[in-house]
Amino acid sequence: MGQREIARAVQKDDSAHTTRIGKPLRVALFGFGTVGSSVARILVESRPEGLELTHVFNRGVARKKVDWASKNVVWSEDAGGVLSSDVDVVVELAGGLEPAGSWVRRALESGKSVVTANKKLIAFHGVELERLAAAKGGHLKYGAAVAGGIPVIPGLEQGLAGDRIERMQGILNGTCNFILSRMEAGAEYATVLAAAQAKGYAEADPTEDVGGFDARAKLAILMRLALRVVVDPEEIIPQSITSVTAVDFSYARDLGCTIRQVARAEEREGNVAATVGPMLVDLRSPLAWSRNTENMVILTGKYGGDVVFSGHGAGGHPTAVAVVSDLIALAHGSRRVEVPSVPAKIGAEFEVPHYIRFLVVDRPGIVAEITGTLARERINIRAIVQKAGYPAHALPFVVTVEPCKSSTLKRALTSIGKMDCLLEEPLNLQMLE
Amino acid sequence: MGQREIARAVQKDDSAHTTRIGKPLRVALFGFGTVGSSVARILVESRPEGLELTHVFNRGVARKKVDWASKNVVWSEDAGGVLSSDVDVVVELAGGLEPAGSWVRRALESGKSVVTANKKLIAFHGVELERLAAAKGGHLKYGAAVAGGIPVIPGLEQGLAGDRIERMQGILNGTCNFILSRMEAGAEYATVLAAAQAKGYAEADPTEDVGGFDARAKLAILMRLALRVVVDPEEIIPQSITSVTAVDFSYARDLGCTIRQVARAEEREGNVAATVGPMLVDLRSPLAWSRNTENMVILTGKYGGDVVFSGHGAGGHPTAVAVVSDLIALAHGSRRVEVPSVPAKIGAEFEVPHYIRFLVVDRPGIVAEITGTLARERINIRAIVQKAGYPAHALPFVVTVEPCKSSTLKRALTSIGKMDCLLEEPLNLQMLE
Repeated sequence: MGQREIARAVQKDDSAHTTRIGKPLRVALFGFGTVGSSVARILVESRPEGLELTHVFNRGVARKKVDWASKNVVWSEDAGGVLSSDVDVVVELAGGLEPAGSWVRRALESGKSVVTANKKLIAFHGVELERLAAAKGGHLKYGAAVAGGIPVIPGLEQGLAGDRIERMQGILNGTCNFILSRMEAGAEYATVLAAAQAKGYAEADPTEDVGGFDARAKLAILMRLALRVVVDPEEIIPQSITSVTAVDFSYARDLGCTIRQVARAEEREGNVAATVGPMLVDLRSPLAWSRNTENMVILTGKYGGDVVFSGHGAGGHPTAVAVVSDLIALAHGSRRVEVPSVPAKIGAEFEVPHYIRFLVVDRPGIVAEITGTLARERINIRAIVQKAGYPAHALPFVVTVEPCKSSTLKRALTSIGKMDCLLEEPLNLQMLE
Repeated sequence: MGQREIARAVQKDDSAHTTRIGKPLRVALFGFGTVGSSVARILVESRPEGLELTHVFNRGVARKKVDWASKNVVWSEDAGGVLSSDVDVVVELAGGLEPAGSWVRRALESGKSVVTANKKLIAFHGVELERLAAAKGGHLKYGAAVAGGIPVIPGLEQGLAGDRIERMQGILNGTCNFILSRMEAGAEYATVLAAAQAKGYAEADPTEDVGGFDARAKLAILMRLALRVVVDPEEIIPQSITSVTAVDFSYARDLGCTIRQVARAEEREGNVAATVGPMLVDLRSPLAWSRNTENMVILTGKYGGDVVFSGHGAGGHPTAVAVVSDLIALAHGSRRVEVPSVPAKIGAEFEVPHYIRFLVVDRPGIVAEITGTLARERINIRAIVQKAGYPAHALPFVVTVEPCKSSTLKRALTSIGKMDCLLEEPLNLQMLE
């Protein structure tokens, strides 16, 4: 653009701005649970310029109706009716692939814009939905889909587009962080899970969270924006946190570490590695600072080095902040900075040290057998740690190994797993360095 | 905007995008030092879409010329010539109020856009320059002016616009953080300052950094974006870090703290408080994690709670990432989200606990006299700490007091300062809670 063209473009903008103040964007909320009512609350309290809440859709909407919203708001149980109304922006807070996906597609098809907090939908269908939005003249924004109230997505798009992000590590699931940071303080898994469920931090079926499925969806989204690769989230194999016990926290502490559910990915000359699971993190690392339901993302750029973002990743208000910020950006005519991304397979593995915890009925020769098997796979042992005070009939001990591929280690552990002294499958965790 | 209007606006955008790819934004660098050459380097290596480096202005430009830049780049010593050329964006990296301010004004006057890393210019003249940009059809972006490679400004504008930020604390000066985190590890001020100067982290005259003037300019910028108040930076009274000694780090550690240069501000019902200086920070606080030249910003929102940003605040490459990211946002037609701000006076004071370190020739009655004076000002003592091992003729000891206003404490200390046993003025630091 020449300077006159810039000048003209901005003059258009200014007139659009004037129009916009005269006629705000009409906003429909799809879903009026914790996040939805927080969004409405912020819109009512802060009255950001250029936005008007006009519709709320929810099943059984009568019991959702609140007296503090504008009297002009239409409360509806008819999704189709709201989608064919004259709203400009649909805020999708229902979650899950369907029916949320159909609503979002229909809104975008008709040229409306969509703001969503739906990590699953964006992880699996983000590219397709962005194309649809661009083709039909709407916008798709999802700053709330990853790390709720922490502006990682706008920070990446607007502030780090000039870097080349090569590696990322994140604590992306507040439920797991709550559970593991409480276990670090001495609690048992089952007790903490029950507490998390009572506080509404965990679902009745916690698999999506503790199994790593929630975090991998968020990781896939961040990989597209940060590493600029489009991956199938299902290629990221998650490891559950449910096998981690109090014993592991005790051994981790002796190693100068604690345990967090970490989602990590890196790209090197086209080779992409990505994984999610409980990992040992150094007590001096930022990841160890993250407690309770906090989220954290560490991005490592070729030029800018490490950038750390941390804060409340979930909860009604923090997620609502991200949603309202996206709405404000739409109202101000701020366009996304769309960085090019390429499809990629997850074909590489991290070569990192590992922590392996065995639980055995003690007898002579166990260590010799285990170390012998590891040696045959050319895996170097870093340390063998056995703390006093555990019973011989259920003895936990730990072997840490020098950096190796997970697949090599798994081969060795399959062989070791046949030993009759083992009371359970060995627990094998990556150690972050 | 109705949905058809949105559709039309975006179609316009798309055509602009097509035009843009055909004709990239022509970029002129003003200043080819560490940051300028990093910007050029990233543009050459990453070739972001829609940007072309066409001019480099620097005094004595002949010795700056590099062989890895495009042959089409015009290397010039004639600022006026470059400003009247057909460049679309001027990247101002000269720093300081003049002549940088004149160049920026002239560029904006002629409808060009400006990207700058100049915190001083933006802190003192940002509002005026933004108005000029808007009036003439250009854009002014300054993501690099605060915390270099950490995307605090885009994070605030794009990701936290939906919150109401009430408080902020930051480590905004890398030089001070380098000096104080080295002193924490046992080094003396003069030694570390010399090392910082040798590494290029500190100027020959370090006053701007150690005196807190650099940090207060950045604080004033963040106050406008986060707290939405426009203040005169000179109303923020900085405290120098030069009075902090090894003794203070030793006493701080006994109190579970360390010392950092912190810039902080808060707004409560129109009352604005802001200050910069060395402060005691809890060892468990994120501010204590920040080491070397790192920067950190903690924003506390009414809805989203604390958000922490951390990373490399200065240096050629990290600052260049912020500059190039701003350029990419311009090339993509991304508009700033301009939140309304109001002029404000800094009229409030923080009520916080204070650390006061005395250096005395020991004699009976000193503590009674000091505590008596504090009591007359109704300041409550929290603790009196005197470590063994210091000589009686130069004895440092510490009094900490419960939250009180700095002005009240200063009145008491003026009175105490007249005591003949004092070898120097008492050192008085805020303690962050």
